[in-house]
Amino acid sequence: MAALDLASDVVSLTRQLVDTPSESGQEAALADAVEAALARLPHLDVSRVGHSVVARTHVGRPTRVVLAGHLDTVPAADNLPSRIEDGRLLGLGACDMKGGVAVALRTAAALPAPAHDVTYVFYECEEVSSDRNGLTRIAAHRPDLLAADLAVLLEPSDAGVEAGCQGTLTAEVVATGRRAHTARAWLGRNAAHRAAAILQRLEDHIGAEVEVDGLTYREGLSAVGVRAGVADNVVPDSCVVTVNYRFAPHRSPQEAVAYVTGLFPEFEVRVTDLAPAAPPGLRQPAVAALVGALGCEPRPKLGWTDVARFAELGIPALNYGPGDPGLAHTPGEYVTLDQLTRCEERLRAWLTA
Amino acid sequence: MAALDLASDVVSLTRQLVDTPSESGQEAALADAVEAALARLPHLDVSRVGHSVVARTHVGRPTRVVLAGHLDTVPAADNLPSRIEDGRLLGLGACDMKGGVAVALRTAAALPAPAHDVTYVFYECEEVSSDRNGLTRIAAHRPDLLAADLAVLLEPSDAGVEAGCQGTLTAEVVATGRRAHTARAWLGRNAAHRAAAILQRLEDHIGAEVEVDGLTYREGLSAVGVRAGVADNVVPDSCVVTVNYRFAPHRSPQEAVAYVTGLFPEFEVRVTDLAPAAPPGLRQPAVAALVGALGCEPRPKLGWTDVARFAELGIPALNYGPGDPGLAHTPGEYVTLDQLTRCEERLRAWLTA
Repeated sequence: MAALDLASDVVSLTRQLVDTPSESGQEAALADAVEAALARLPHLDVSRVGHSVVARTHVGRPTRVVLAGHLDTVPAADNLPSRIEDGRLLGLGACDMKGGVAVALRTAAALPAPAHDVTYVFYECEEVSSDRNGLTRIAAHRPDLLAADLAVLLEPSDAGVEAGCQGTLTAEVVATGRRAHTARAWLGRNAAHRAAAILQRLEDHIGAEVEVDGLTYREGLSAVGVRAGVADNVVPDSCVVTVNYRFAPHRSPQEAVAYVTGLFPEFEVRVTDLAPAAPPGLRQPAVAALVGALGCEPRPKLGWTDVARFAELGIPALNYGPGDPGLAHTPGEYVTLDQLTRCEERLRAWLTA
Repeated sequence: MAALDLASDVVSLTRQLVDTPSESGQEAALADAVEAALARLPHLDVSRVGHSVVARTHVGRPTRVVLAGHLDTVPAADNLPSRIEDGRLLGLGACDMKGGVAVALRTAAALPAPAHDVTYVFYECEEVSSDRNGLTRIAAHRPDLLAADLAVLLEPSDAGVEAGCQGTLTAEVVATGRRAHTARAWLGRNAAHRAAAILQRLEDHIGAEVEVDGLTYREGLSAVGVRAGVADNVVPDSCVVTVNYRFAPHRSPQEAVAYVTGLFPEFEVRVTDLAPAAPPGLRQPAVAALVGALGCEPRPKLGWTDVARFAELGIPALNYGPGDPGLAHTPGEYVTLDQLTRCEERLRAWLTA
């Protein structure tokens, strides 16, 4: 591929990134290009961990901030190459999140002496399992690279500030029974019939609305899978309802487990995945200053993001990036040229204040 | 394999059959042996259709009866070779239904001039899908071979008469919804939650008890499968509950469809399998005479059997054979030596009366 031109403009750079495929697990070429482009900048100290690239200024500021974005995308859906229509840049990853990556790369190139020292993190495998996530690998092998006072993830947030994030818990709620031939069904106990109680409880459940730091989070509890079945002539002895619980930052992961377990006292509950929420941290001075500089009203982040990973490291974090989060992972995803430009300008203003 | 010795005794013959593996689709060797043994008997006219063998007497009796048994078994479960313990013959197919096949083969050899003309049918692939069933193939290619006034299937019935059989209907009841990210579950409609109504209705359903010809059939409606799930962070837009309905002989297949469809008026119902019930036909003279000769009280057959296939051809049919039907398809299946002997004696008495 052609070398990345960080000096052109944010729209051209986003297109160049979109047109360099980087589905999760196949980020090598794009990571190489990002590493090469950053290594040409004498004010940056560049490190590589797997297919993630970290570039740091060392201007001696009292505070250090992380600007982070993932390099990978979900699989293509007949949405390449990029194109521009009606003020929108369309194509795989345009929204999630090569627009944000372009903004960060442009900022890295343009500001040799920012107002805060900056650590730029471009990482792999955000769209797949947590153990493959580039941030997990960096935190494990080079935790020093992530040290900071504040982190900004340039995930699509409609060019607004999304603070904190909700936690997520996945669990299997298991109804059991006793097999029998369906011609003599009364000799068994139908586990799928018993699962009606689980599903009805989910149908009746009303997610709590919880205020934290002035932001209202809305919880949700959903069945995301149901499986039962031995054969068409057998009363099933097991029915597994997989539930996903999105919980507000006032609950710890352990409290979330206790809550879901308590909803189904007569069934076995097996937790299969658990990631903590992150508090918005709006009262922390570094976050308050950033929100003030960006000049937008913070909103609660309902989905789980890598913000929680920084929160676990003790680093307040928020999402701020171009693109409508509702378009992420859709074949028609796009980012408006307006948001690309605005995000770049606002971040640059903050880092030169 | 050694030639089948139809002149020895029913227990030895059953062991020889059990020790000749004949899982569905692999009946060739056993069918060859059966065909060769029957072809040696001058009073029988032997035909072969695939791996099914039909042997007929032509004594000129006014009535003709079918004695039928399938040659195949379910897959082995570490239950070969056969052995005898405490008056039981154990091994794959001992109960379902090589004991019955042995009784029929012994009868075929022993009675050159039975009281009714007899058509012996030994057929393949009863344990698999209907289109592979040997009776289906014979009915399609040589329907003349099945012409009769009465059919006796030597399926395991605990050496009692099981009359008629219930029908079976399998259908998918489909709850639909609208996908959404679980972090904003309220933007979607959870199809699995809606399916609570389907499962609760099944849980509450009470199967009818229906009397036909003095026998009481007991219907049953069971969820036999549930499937829903897109991903652990997606509200599913479809939940499919597979139900199996066992219906008594007072309903036609069309009435069974109408009944199940009527139970779920707000959901789509797709029928995927449908087989008719068979009336017990106890008032038909040929059946009544047989039941009288066998000297046992008829019971209703709740499971579906090939009796229904004969009923569709207009031939009254019943099950009468050695072995506890509850042991069919279990690794420990067996048949008692007592039932083997008793069934052979009773059938022979009836056919020499």
